[in-house]
Amino acid sequence: MTNLLILHGPNLNLTGKREPDVYGRMTLDEINAQIESHAASLGASTRFVQSNHEGALIDALHDAMGWADGAVFNPGAYTHYSYALRDAVVAVPYPVVEVHMSLTAAREPFRHVSVIAPVCVGQITGFGYRSYLLGVDALLAEAPQ
Amino acid sequence: MTNLLILHGPNLNLTGKREPDVYGRMTLDEINAQIESHAASLGASTRFVQSNHEGALIDALHDAMGWADGAVFNPGAYTHYSYALRDAVVAVPYPVVEVHMSLTAAREPFRHVSVIAPVCVGQITGFGYRSYLLGVDALLAEAPQ
Amino acid sequence: MTNLLILHGPNLNLTGKREPDVYGRMTLDEINAQIESHAASLGASTRFVQSNHEGALIDALHDAMGWADGAVFNPGAYTHYSYALRDAVVAVPYPVVEVHMSLTAAREPFRHVSVIAPVCVGQITGFGYRSYLLGVDALLAEAPQ
Amino acid sequence: MTNLLILHGPNLNLTGKREPDVYGRMTLDEINAQIESHAASLGASTRFVQSNHEGALIDALHDAMGWADGAVFNPGAYTHYSYALRDAVVAVPYPVVEVHMSLTAAREPFRHVSVIAPVCVGQITGFGYRSYLLGVDALLAEAPQ
Amino acid sequence: MTNLLILHGPNLNLTGKREPDVYGRMTLDEINAQIESHAASLGASTRFVQSNHEGALIDALHDAMGWADGAVFNPGAYTHYSYALRDAVVAVPYPVVEVHMSLTAAREPFRHVSVIAPVCVGQITGFGYRSYLLGVDALLAEAPQ
Amino acid sequence: MTNLLILHGPNLNLTGKREPDVYGRMTLDEINAQIESHAASLGASTRFVQSNHEGALIDALHDAMGWADGAVFNPGAYTHYSYALRDAVVAVPYPVVEVHMSLTAAREPFRHVSVIAPVCVGQITGFGYRSYLLGVDALLAEAPQ
Amino acid sequence: MTNLLILHGPNLNLTGKREPDVYGRMTLDEINAQIESHAASLGASTRFVQSNHEGALIDALHDAMGWADGAVFNPGAYTHYSYALRDAVVAVPYPVVEVHMSLTAAREPFRHVSVIAPVCVGQITGFGYRSYLLGVDALLAEAPQ
Amino acid sequence: MTNLLILHGPNLNLTGKREPDVYGRMTLDEINAQIESHAASLGASTRFVQSNHEGALIDALHDAMGWADGAVFNPGAYTHYSYALRDAVVAVPYPVVEVHMSLTAAREPFRHVSVIAPVCVGQITGFGYRSYLLGVDALLAEAPQ
Amino acid sequence: MTNLLILHGPNLNLTGKREPDVYGRMTLDEINAQIESHAASLGASTRFVQSNHEGALIDALHDAMGWADGAVFNPGAYTHYSYALRDAVVAVPYPVVEVHMSLTAAREPFRHVSVIAPVCVGQITGFGYRSYLLGVDALLAEAPQ
Amino acid sequence: MTNLLILHGPNLNLTGKREPDVYGRMTLDEINAQIESHAASLGASTRFVQSNHEGALIDALHDAMGWADGAVFNPGAYTHYSYALRDAVVAVPYPVVEVHMSLTAAREPFRHVSVIAPVCVGQITGFGYRSYLLGVDALLAEAPQ
Amino acid sequence: MTNLLILHGPNLNLTGKREPDVYGRMTLDEINAQIESHAASLGASTRFVQSNHEGALIDALHDAMGWADGAVFNPGAYTHYSYALRDAVVAVPYPVVEVHMSLTAAREPFRHVSVIAPVCVGQITGFGYRSYLLGVDALLAEAPQ
Amino acid sequence: MTNLLILHGPNLNLTGKREPDVYGRMTLDEINAQIESHAASLGASTRFVQSNHEGALIDALHDAMGWADGAVFNPGAYTHYSYALRDAVVAVPYPVVEVHMSLTAAREPFRHVSVIAPVCVGQITGFGYRSYLLGVDALLAEAPQ
Repeated sequence: MTNLLILHGPNLNLTGKREPDVYGRMTLDEINAQIESHAASLGASTRFVQSNHEGALIDALHDAMGWADGAVFNPGAYTHYSYALRDAVVAVPYPVVEVHMSLTAAREPFRHVSVIAPVCVGQITGFGYRSYLLGVDALLAEAPQ
Repeated sequence: MTNLLILHGPNLNLTGKREPDVYGRMTLDEINAQIESHAASLGASTRFVQSNHEGALIDALHDAMGWADGAVFNPGAYTHYSYALRDAVVAVPYPVVEVHMSLTAAREPFRHVSVIAPVCVGQITGFGYRSYLLGVDALLAEAPQ
Repeated sequence: MTNLLILHGPNLNLTGKREPDVYGRMTLDEINAQIESHAASLGASTRFVQSNHEGALIDALHDAMGWADGAVFNPGAYTHYSYALRDAVVAVPYPVVEVHMSLTAAREPFRHVSVIAPVCVGQITGFGYRSYLLGVDALLAEAPQ
Repeated sequence: MTNLLILHGPNLNLTGKREPDVYGRMTLDEINAQIESHAASLGASTRFVQSNHEGALIDALHDAMGWADGAVFNPGAYTHYSYALRDAVVAVPYPVVEVHMSLTAAREPFRHVSVIAPVCVGQITGFGYRSYLLGVDALLAEAPQ
Repeated sequence: MTNLLILHGPNLNLTGKREPDVYGRMTLDEINAQIESHAASLGASTRFVQSNHEGALIDALHDAMGWADGAVFNPGAYTHYSYALRDAVVAVPYPVVEVHMSLTAAREPFRHVSVIAPVCVGQITGFGYRSYLLGVDALLAEAPQ
Repeated sequence: MTNLLILHGPNLNLTGKREPDVYGRMTLDEINAQIESHAASLGASTRFVQSNHEGALIDALHDAMGWADGAVFNPGAYTHYSYALRDAVVAVPYPVVEVHMSLTAAREPFRHVSVIAPVCVGQITGFGYRSYLLGVDALLAEAPQ
Repeated sequence: MTNLLILHGPNLNLTGKREPDVYGRMTLDEINAQIESHAASLGASTRFVQSNHEGALIDALHDAMGWADGAVFNPGAYTHYSYALRDAVVAVPYPVVEVHMSLTAAREPFRHVSVIAPVCVGQITGFGYRSYLLGVDALLAEAPQ
Repeated sequence: MTNLLILHGPNLNLTGKREPDVYGRMTLDEINAQIESHAASLGASTRFVQSNHEGALIDALHDAMGWADGAVFNPGAYTHYSYALRDAVVAVPYPVVEVHMSLTAAREPFRHVSVIAPVCVGQITGFGYRSYLLGVDALLAEAPQ
Repeated sequence: MTNLLILHGPNLNLTGKREPDVYGRMTLDEINAQIESHAASLGASTRFVQSNHEGALIDALHDAMGWADGAVFNPGAYTHYSYALRDAVVAVPYPVVEVHMSLTAAREPFRHVSVIAPVCVGQITGFGYRSYLLGVDALLAEAPQ
Repeated sequence: MTNLLILHGPNLNLTGKREPDVYGRMTLDEINAQIESHAASLGASTRFVQSNHEGALIDALHDAMGWADGAVFNPGAYTHYSYALRDAVVAVPYPVVEVHMSLTAAREPFRHVSVIAPVCVGQITGFGYRSYLLGVDALLAEAPQ
Repeated sequence: MTNLLILHGPNLNLTGKREPDVYGRMTLDEINAQIESHAASLGASTRFVQSNHEGALIDALHDAMGWADGAVFNPGAYTHYSYALRDAVVAVPYPVVEVHMSLTAAREPFRHVSVIAPVCVGQITGFGYRSYLLGVDALLAEAPQ
Repeated sequence: MTNLLILHGPNLNLTGKREPDVYGRMTLDEINAQIESHAASLGASTRFVQSNHEGALIDALHDAMGWADGAVFNPGAYTHYSYALRDAVVAVPYPVVEVHMSLTAAREPFRHVSVIAPVCVGQITGFGYRSYLLGVDALLAEAPQ
């Protein structure tokens, strides 16, 4: 059985309450339920971590080294400057897919560059909460099952 | 029933023969067969166009206005400078998903920017031919069925 | 009698159907009829070419060398990167006026620079389909009659 | 009847005496006579202001709020840095057309950008004194008559 | 026997008629005759393609995969922005030499960068039509004979 | 008793009539009355100058050397390029506070940089006409009383 | 009654001990006492948070959603790169004023840009600890009372 | 006899009172006296103009067309952005030498570029009030005597 | 006796397991043992802190104010963007040496700039774990003993 | 008879010993022998100079003014910054061809720009030691014989 | 008596033979004779050094430490990149004036920046060989006599 | 026994006499004596070269190929632009450590980039003459003994 880390970055705890035009109206718990059920239907188990702390996200990536076969990671705004998270993705042995609910290429210029994507296996942006589901799909084809 | 345009840009006709480390060893016909069968299993029909001509790709986007409910588009190297293709995507009424087989963010700097992605509904990169399949999945959730 | 080439670039075939807030609601045929009648009232004949193909636009500029006394050219999005079209304008002996229906200076940054304008005799932007009429006026004062 | 402000920026008082290869040999008075007669033939009256003072040009734009239906404005070298003039164009209720006698896109790089054009209704460059006449034509189609 | 593709990009069909100070007074047919005779004297045969269409140049590079041992390519203005042509040069198995008749480094800044040269085997600029002859010489030493 | 110069830059004479979404609906006279009354309540007298002329604003700063204990200065669009005003602020012995009614950091990119602020004692932006009142408060704590 | 969050970013716990020429000689506790007393005199209550952790500052902004009517926020060096804090300010419903004790525009170039200010209601810099007091004043006029 | 215009730009009226470390302790009147006497000893007469108004400096350059054989011009901070003054220098028939008392190359970066110097006959910086005297010397060798 | 803080930034806890070609095969514990023994042989005691949290590293620098005579600091990827850590180094009274095991100048461009080094006493890069030992040597000559 | 200067810049004395993957395995003496014999077969004599000193290369260009009909010049790394060598090439009356053994456009970014090529008659890169032979060919067609 | 070093950089040995439109028709010996006689008339002796070698120019600046009271230095093309010469000027105790015969601000962009001028006492450009004479004048007022 | 080249670049011959605040008060001879004695204590012999000539430094690096096991190199200002020295370091087989006495990262911006460091084995800056001693230490651990 495949084990996936679903990692949510800063401010995603407010999803559903914050800027619904950009991020939709589902809460993070509701999104996590969708991800869990989608992954389960494909035979994979999921663990969820959300933190506003860059260091805690690094810790979570490190801690998953014992059990995870892959990670779906939405780094939030850390996407655009956290070279420390980039180094953490390089350091761990399992594949990581970067996802974003919004189409970052169509938003403010600072969101057009990801310093983390170049060390991931792939990137998916723009499909709302379904970006996570597509990330799970992509990862399950990547990860050993 | 949903009808999808699968649009391949320049040099993709050589897929499987060209730079296999980057693009894999499947030919474009083999990839198209995978896409067709995947879409069919979801109840969608597919039409395929490949051209090395920027103008022919614009024409193909225009011509699909009569029948397509969405398009999965790999603009190849035109991704990085064809504002004419960008305008064509804006001009058509159906949603377009930009896909790339390679992880463009991890290649030469000129491949880090897409001038077309900002006017698509989403972007998927890095998963080889499966980027197309994920694009079909994403589109079917977007498009009317 | 003066003979004018009216040359329309990519996506202009969709004028009237595409982004009416930007480009207005007249179709290209209706615009061409206005241009033809305006030029005729000033004693000039007009021929119309539209193509989405950069190469076809170059060909059209070359082919007009036998008969045209001037050209009104809306290069569409090719305005911003087609050095090949720029070279074609330099290569032909008759004067070319660049026109745009929208005020390109007020749109996305990539539309602020024209690589073709520096080799034209003049540039007119922002007046909707009337930009073409003003271009005809400007050219008739330029060209031998 | 339509009333137009014809506004000339710095150094244009020397037109005809200064750099005739760039600006032609007509004096500003001769150009103004052409504009006046052209506008009159179209049923419009014209008032002329020239100043080398940025502040005086702002004042002129403000002062015309009581009577002008539109302005043809050649901001001279202020075109390239006067955000104060830009703000003045935004502040007044009537449409403004930016014109230049020379083809600014073909001159020194600092002349390639206009900070004022983005808030005008259109821009016309390169046709010598006839740029003003075309500006009047464009404005009369814009302004209420 | 060695077979060479001689590929001419946009506007080169006008060579001899267009900007003789830059490109000389020989027509493209006369230049091709020189190249053919020079190559023949070295035991190589030549085929000539000229097109103003970026896509047609890509097609020509692809089509030569069956027979060419090398190509001498003057991409004209596409040199400076056609990443699609760059990808085509990477995709074909035979060596390509980029040539220019003018000294591009001494012309407008946009001509100082070639996006295609980095994937060629060499670059020769500045020697008029003899740039092609030197390209043939260079290629014959490169290609299998 | 403390004497304050309240200096308004270009186009501020139109405040209340121009872009009310950005600048509010109070006229400059009404704003001046608020400032005067606020300063008076704190024991300070105020003199008001408004000009659209960069040179007149420099003159006003110079002329206040005899009597002013401080200045609240809204340089309008001159904020972004008037190094001459910057030098004037350096040249005078009394403290100057730069204020803006709008939040310049949230508007067009050219408004994000102030060439004058680095030589002021402080900067206050975004609070509408109350930016001036806060500037008076800040200055009174700065200036000798 | 109005409730205000006073949020201090990294290294501000050392205020009074660190670089007194830049930040003054008052400790953070002394500054907080001034703020509390000033706010109380205006009928507002204050709560104080200081952290060197970017994530803890985000948490503090989120946690105040239940009770705060506004926040005065000195993000310290995070001002210049924390897009995560910027997103947090966007996410919360109450107004935030950015303040700095030093005149950031007059210090090192990296301090000239705030990535947070564009989503605040205003910005106040340069007045030492009084920047906080002015921020409270500004906020009380903004916030419901 | 040779007639020289000595033209002083913004804030130079405060010379001697303002930033004595940068500009010295002589007043502008004292400097003018030095210039007048130095020029007289070489058989030249001098007229002096100082203004803080960009437009007035343009006017002064224009007005001197009737009588001046050359000008020594210190444009102050306008040096760095006044393309209008640059155009004025181009427009007048007599030679202009740009001078600065301070060594602009050793001050703030914005002072490192002069937009006016490229159209002068020469530039002299760094020698305090003696920069003017050297400018007179240079001009007298240039101008007809 | 001298007391040294040895401070390790993000992802350094994985040293020896992560990218051995870049960082070597010794674990952080083994490296710390080397440092401790090297420092002890020079009469200095060492305390070790590692954290993936930017804020925790700031806290560690602050907390060492009571006892440390100097610090050897490897900020990991925070080197390239943490102005908050830079401010912390400025704020503490003891000297800090920045070290890196890899030669940052020879890696990705984002690693070529350190925002922290300008406020350290020195920087040592490229010598693997021995960079720390050299840092201790450098510091002992700097610090009071 | 034609006399050619063959000028080798810095580090080329180590050719054949240094980075053979980039520069090949022939020594400079062996390359010179090839050049001499190739030139002789075309009726031209050759003189060889190599120096690591920028000044000595300038001297060599100057000294050849008495006897050389042309020069083939490989400026090595001076290519990318020696404006002094550029000026020397401009100063001498005979034509100079710039050659490089490696394809500079495909190496580090600093090697993509030549400050010398714009003042040569042509540039040839990428063909190993044969770049020199092609340079001789090009020059003999250029130079008087 | 005052002793002056007159230092000429690369290619200046060819003055009078090279690009007479830019540098005039006097030879360096003739220019030196003018300088010597001008300095002698002011009671100063002169020594002349010219070299094409950056290192030799540094040596000359160092060697003059024993006897020179000042230097007039034309660094030629080294002006634009020789930080080593800049450091040499900083290292010597006597004042240095940078001169250029041509108006560098009006030539190619790379000539617009001097890396040496910021550490000189002044800069004089554009007056042909008289730039040296003005430099001597400026220096004699600077240097002890 | 290990043999080390200690190589000093331009202006370092003046160390101790020049800018003592930056470089200290020891002369180069005194520094060399320290290095020699330090190296000897570790069983290594040292040879010293200093030159202001870029070419002489290249020669010295080449000449040491016969005997040196490593080099400690302070390239002085050549650090920032000498790609020729960079190529020389690549060309020689022994390891090179770049050292600087000052903390280059804390000085003028042009000193922040080293074009040589990326091809060295390590870089040490900021520790005065002890930077050399640390370089020797680093090298002895690198070089065969």
